[in-house]
Amino acid sequence: MAVVVNPGLDRSGINRLLGNSTYEAAFPPHEGSYKSRHPIKTHGAQNHRHLLYERWARWGIWYKYQPLDLIRRYFGEKIGLYFAWLGWYTGMLIPAALVGLFVFLYGLFTMDSSQVSKEICEANTTIMCPMCDVNCSAWKLSDSCVYAKVTHLFDNGGTVFFAIFMAIWATVFLEFWKRRRAELTYDWDLIDWEEEEISLVLTAVFAVVVFRLIAMEKFASFQWEFVKKNWQFATSGTGVCINFMIIMSLNVVYEKVAYLLTNLEHPRTESEWENSFALKMFLFQFVNLNSSTFYIAFFLGRFAGRPGDYNKLFNRWRMEECHPSGCLIDLCLQMGVIMVLKQIWNNFMELGYPLLQNWWSRRKMRRAGEQNNVESKEQLPQWDKDWNLQPMNAHGLVDEYLEMVLQFGFTTIFVAAFPLAPLLALLNNIIEIRLDAYKFVTQWRRPMPARATDIGIWHGILEGIGVVAVITNAFVIAITSDYIPRFVYAFKYGPCVNKGYRHEQCLRGYMNSSLSVFDMGEPQNGSQIETRYCRYRDYRAPPWSSQPYEFTLQFWHVLAARLAFIIVFEHLVFGIKTFIAHLIPDMPKDLCERMRREKYLMQEMMYEAELEHLQKERKKNGKRYHHEWP
Amino acid sequence: MAVVVNPGLDRSGINRLLGNSTYEAAFPPHEGSYKSRHPIKTHGAQNHRHLLYERWARWGIWYKYQPLDLIRRYFGEKIGLYFAWLGWYTGMLIPAALVGLFVFLYGLFTMDSSQVSKEICEANTTIMCPMCDVNCSAWKLSDSCVYAKVTHLFDNGGTVFFAIFMAIWATVFLEFWKRRRAELTYDWDLIDWEEEEISLVLTAVFAVVVFRLIAMEKFASFQWEFVKKNWQFATSGTGVCINFMIIMSLNVVYEKVAYLLTNLEHPRTESEWENSFALKMFLFQFVNLNSSTFYIAFFLGRFAGRPGDYNKLFNRWRMEECHPSGCLIDLCLQMGVIMVLKQIWNNFMELGYPLLQNWWSRRKMRRAGEQNNVESKEQLPQWDKDWNLQPMNAHGLVDEYLEMVLQFGFTTIFVAAFPLAPLLALLNNIIEIRLDAYKFVTQWRRPMPARATDIGIWHGILEGIGVVAVITNAFVIAITSDYIPRFVYAFKYGPCVNKGYRHEQCLRGYMNSSLSVFDMGEPQNGSQIETRYCRYRDYRAPPWSSQPYEFTLQFWHVLAARLAFIIVFEHLVFGIKTFIAHLIPDMPKDLCERMRREKYLMQEMMYEAELEHLQKERKKNGKRYHHEWP
Repeated sequence: MAVVVNPGLDRSGINRLLGNSTYEAAFPPHEGSYKSRHPIKTHGAQNHRHLLYERWARWGIWYKYQPLDLIRRYFGEKIGLYFAWLGWYTGMLIPAALVGLFVFLYGLFTMDSSQVSKEICEANTTIMCPMCDVNCSAWKLSDSCVYAKVTHLFDNGGTVFFAIFMAIWATVFLEFWKRRRAELTYDWDLIDWEEEEISLVLTAVFAVVVFRLIAMEKFASFQWEFVKKNWQFATSGTGVCINFMIIMSLNVVYEKVAYLLTNLEHPRTESEWENSFALKMFLFQFVNLNSSTFYIAFFLGRFAGRPGDYNKLFNRWRMEECHPSGCLIDLCLQMGVIMVLKQIWNNFMELGYPLLQNWWSRRKMRRAGEQNNVESKEQLPQWDKDWNLQPMNAHGLVDEYLEMVLQFGFTTIFVAAFPLAPLLALLNNIIEIRLDAYKFVTQWRRPMPARATDIGIWHGILEGIGVVAVITNAFVIAITSDYIPRFVYAFKYGPCVNKGYRHEQCLRGYMNSSLSVFDMGEPQNGSQIETRYCRYRDYRAPPWSSQPYEFTLQFWHVLAARLAFIIVFEHLVFGIKTFIAHLIPDMPKDLCERMRREKYLMQEMMYEAELEHLQKERKKNGKRYHHEWP
Repeated sequence: MAVVVNPGLDRSGINRLLGNSTYEAAFPPHEGSYKSRHPIKTHGAQNHRHLLYERWARWGIWYKYQPLDLIRRYFGEKIGLYFAWLGWYTGMLIPAALVGLFVFLYGLFTMDSSQVSKEICEANTTIMCPMCDVNCSAWKLSDSCVYAKVTHLFDNGGTVFFAIFMAIWATVFLEFWKRRRAELTYDWDLIDWEEEEISLVLTAVFAVVVFRLIAMEKFASFQWEFVKKNWQFATSGTGVCINFMIIMSLNVVYEKVAYLLTNLEHPRTESEWENSFALKMFLFQFVNLNSSTFYIAFFLGRFAGRPGDYNKLFNRWRMEECHPSGCLIDLCLQMGVIMVLKQIWNNFMELGYPLLQNWWSRRKMRRAGEQNNVESKEQLPQWDKDWNLQPMNAHGLVDEYLEMVLQFGFTTIFVAAFPLAPLLALLNNIIEIRLDAYKFVTQWRRPMPARATDIGIWHGILEGIGVVAVITNAFVIAITSDYIPRFVYAFKYGPCVNKGYRHEQCLRGYMNSSLSVFDMGEPQNGSQIETRYCRYRDYRAPPWSSQPYEFTLQFWHVLAARLAFIIVFEHLVFGIKTFIAHLIPDMPKDLCERMRREKYLMQEMMYEAELEHLQKERKKNGKRYHHEWP
């Protein structure tokens, strides 16, 4: 059982002495300098810190496996398990990144032959309805040629395949991690070690989450309306950047709230405290990071109304529409920008911040040294050098895991919209491993070693993300992407109907069929474009039909197909997931056999010992009472 | 670890001697007669068998809790756990049965006010298209008045509510069983006892299952076509009965196959053998029992085609259609008949069969006694009396669990179609408990006691059924029942549109709108009904429209609504399920505290003992080497 070190409550023992400033700090010192091979006198023949630096924390060896046994020995099982998990996750990202890259390249190479973007680029006589009420005018569809081409990059046939692939990948990843974990705990002799039960108060968090969702949705629509007036790349990008800054500043507030809430629960052990804090931090940050992405994926453009009958927020702001080539491109942009910015920011915070702090405290010390004329830094004892380093922060590995789990969420949840996400994650993680290693070996005090048999509550969170990912990907493909409308057109309306084959040519005329007609009234002489009718993205009857602006039959066909796709996709993927999870046993067969064998040998040994003991007793008693024993 | 008693392989020890007929049988004898209070001489003061008979196996005490501790003491933990589970399940069925009965009564009381059946009963001018090609003629819709009224009994607004209720009930049942189990294993001191891992070969079974599904679907359509020509209650019932007989005879074959397959796997322990056999038996019998029900629920009437363009099996048999008042009534009939017949059959087999066998062997013994003039039966030693009883069959409790789990499946999987299922299950189980008890106490030899901490693979199977049940109920309500088409009509086509309220009157005209028109050609003078147009159940354009027999807009509305319902229902119910499963901890809080406390006390005690031991050693050594000790 771990010692109770609850960082928010009263402490006892060394923590109490630390708390009332009897001691300034308490930590296990490093084994000498990471730069020199020689250990300090009090230690053994080998300086493990230097070894770790050489074999683990250097950039030059980024392609090598981590020395896990050495890490475990130097930092304890808990940190060892984190790096084992991180390395495993990074390795598993390689196939996902490769397939994602392949899907992206497929989009790139078929970009020019895409029928939809071809039609958009050639449509210089198609007049689109104005995008806003006051300062906007009607515009030509061909103006958005580049936008349409970029859309095809991410919204093509490969997307569906990739979404299914990633859902299965997430399952396989978790199932195989269970096996790897079983091997590690066996090798590190942790089988019998048990953690305490966990119980969580979810209600308080839930209230905050709901509040956040509502506020963000409202807010996102303001902000987007403001910056997207010209609906071009630059402005979309700016919007996402503002969004990112808001996310980052809210995170700081959330950390404090989670800290307070966890201490209110009075958890009884350190592992209980960590699990509770971790779940809160995850829920907060997950909602914070993803709610605007959710908004863009599923709400943007759904409730815009139609020309002549727009829906307005507070009767004032018109809800924004999607681009004629589909809604997926906005989602893709959001994903890409946030992911890149977040990773740069995180890596800076992780390394730059301790580097700066350490530089500052070294500078302070040097000044103090100049004043007191003490010996040079080289002759300082190890604990003095360590004291100048940063302590590992209070919530242990929570931050490290949190970053990786949020990244796992980003890579899987909207992966249909952005197949390059696994590649970005892979690149980040290759850096992340060495960065963390460098930080642990050179920039931090050596942390108190702690034991752990698994990655705690994170495993459950990862499994939850795996389930959410299947659902969101089904909805992204069915509702956000234009895959289904194109499919329905090709099979029911296009030029190939009743011919029984399907290729790009079958989409001829798709763009025209996906745009409805609106009657703007008699053209005034002063206006730029002299036409009475403009087009907009919807399936509605034309103004001259018997039921103007009602949904057409095609709308209902597409809707039924979208819903059917969600049902088929979810049942199929969850079925495969369940099947795979049952197929892969949680423990490798040979490990299972080995443990059985050892259990048997142990029982034999205990039996032998007991027998020997009994015989000795009998011998002694025999001597005492009978004397006829030789 | 349980002793290896693999009933299909070579045996050792007593089993070997039994196998080569050195001994005739080996069993623990009962504690005297169940009728008399006095134990036989060799036993203690109390005859537990008589006590069990008095307090457990009599019909008169059907309303009382079972004496679980006594059962466990007499028969061992494994059988004790089975009865604990059975009692728990029966108790949990009470609320389900009550709600189901209430839903049924709701249907009964609103039967007369149902707009749909009213319209059908009054529709004596509506001519329906013939149900078959050769000997059938057109018929009046009002002829099926009774059928429509019965349909309303099971297909009304309460159905959706009940399906959601049952999905949540199944989750709560399993979650609370986990807690109950934790308490029992603690009370029975089974906490540290471990079972072996299980590994299963699913592939062979899967192949059989697929084969069975295909064969049954084909077969069911034959058979149904044959017996349902007159589509009345009597013939439907006969069809279901034939179906039931086929199911029962196939079960016998399956048992042999499962037995063979399990032995081919060479399982290493008895519990492994049982789990493997249990899973196979369950999969076989589940598919056998439910495949025709699946066919009726989801395929019957879907692929019938339309008048003038019927789909035919092998170009010969027309696929059957649903009744104009909906497809749910066929499903309901199937459920009810199979459930009642199966329960009667099972109870007969369970009690009648051993009773007959025991009567037969007593008769044989009496004759042998008459020949040899031995003493009367009363003076026979207990082992001779026991020897005349039936041994508990080879696969232990598998049959008992199997019956209950299949019943659980029947009660939850299609519960939307037949809300009386939980009530039937409850009545059956009240009988089942006493019947099993009677059988165990009076008709069977006392079985070898065995330990078990849980109900083994059955728990996983029950959880699987819980998931399948949510999906099937979603589909039954959306596709089989007419709930969604009525809903769409009331909100989009009926007389209340734009009025914003909904009651039975809003369904006025629904029956007419759900029937399409077919042109039979000029009426011939010889035919009974002189009309040109007949009606059939579908949403297709009339023959005089511009696109005759194409699906109408209403068809697509209904389809979209059906699919949307499936998505909403599944996500909602699975969400609630997950939330509840997380909300209910697997172990009651006080039990958890008690176990922690005991662990702590145990550690303290061991520490004290160790300390005492060390002090003694020191004392002894001190005496030997120093002699200054007092």
